[in-house]
Amino acid sequence: MIKSLENLIGSMKKLPGIGEKSALRYALWLINNSQDAKEIAKNIETAVNLKKCKICRNLCEDDVCDICLDSSRDKSTICVVETIETLINLESQHIYNGVYFVLWGLISPLEGIYAKDLDLDKLKENAQSAKEIILMLDDSIEGNLTAQYIIDMLDGNIKITKPASGIPVGYNINSLDRLTLQKAFQNRIPY
Amino acid sequence: MIKSLENLIGSMKKLPGIGEKSALRYALWLINNSQDAKEIAKNIETAVNLKKCKICRNLCEDDVCDICLDSSRDKSTICVVETIETLINLESQHIYNGVYFVLWGLISPLEGIYAKDLDLDKLKENAQSAKEIILMLDDSIEGNLTAQYIIDMLDGNIKITKPASGIPVGYNINSLDRLTLQKAFQNRIPY
Repeated sequence: MIKSLENLIGSMKKLPGIGEKSALRYALWLINNSQDAKEIAKNIETAVNLKKCKICRNLCEDDVCDICLDSSRDKSTICVVETIETLINLESQHIYNGVYFVLWGLISPLEGIYAKDLDLDKLKENAQSAKEIILMLDDSIEGNLTAQYIIDMLDGNIKITKPASGIPVGYNINSLDRLTLQKAFQNRIPY
Repeated sequence: MIKSLENLIGSMKKLPGIGEKSALRYALWLINNSQDAKEIAKNIETAVNLKKCKICRNLCEDDVCDICLDSSRDKSTICVVETIETLINLESQHIYNGVYFVLWGLISPLEGIYAKDLDLDKLKENAQSAKEIILMLDDSIEGNLTAQYIIDMLDGNIKITKPASGIPVGYNINSLDRLTLQKAFQNRIPY
């Protein structure tokens, strides 16, 4: 195969979940759509220069992100998320008016990710001027491990909450698993 | 959302079969893996400068591709394929020693692709010095339409063949469709 096509396929295959076949398909599409391809290459080169916000680790073009700069946001509530996917998702729903802290990962001894890799010192510093920390983390081993670490780290000096577990709106009760139903019972609320 | 992230997601979404969610996932992966991302961008920029072989329309870095330049290849047999995926696939199997002609599409009046869009004049020219044309095209309406057009164009002056239809090696006979079985019967060969 031609070297430059082989190189392109090889590098596309590094994208998460992309195998040989998809990489080839994308590579050929890019070659056939050179205008779009050049735009993608240019946008990649611009985007890799994005920085992490000095305060909350959100992605931003300058030192501090728009959310942290926005005076209408409630700085006393910090929502801790694993990735900026969650931040972007929450922002697009317009349901939260506090600020964030992006961990860019979870503690996972199996994958060799420890507390020291997560920049938790900065979270601790931010927490000093806040009233509430919402731990919006996956209900997984890693998520719970990280949550527990943060709870221990903040040492009872601040209110720490997590999102409610229960029946998703509009779901058929019979399609839900035992654990979700159990949590929905435990956390039942008055009408 | 940050403009440069939005731009990257927007351009990644143009890739075939990539939706909003995958585009976001890839974009964030690229930002998090800036070394790989820069490599992808560089490889895209190199690959879009690939040319089409003057003889067979295969992709190549110079004017004529390696296959057409290879003196050990049988120039009297031309295998006509729709895309270079097929060419790459056949080449990786080492089962064919002739040359190719890449159509970069099939006649499809529904999609507004007509014979004039397929560079068939060059195929006609190449066919003059060949002994056999193998039409390795999909058994679809578009594939058959294109095959028939080529057969008419070459006007009985050359042997034209297509790959055999039948039972794939190792397949369970009972899992095959009626049409395949029918073709396997019709084209039965002596032991």
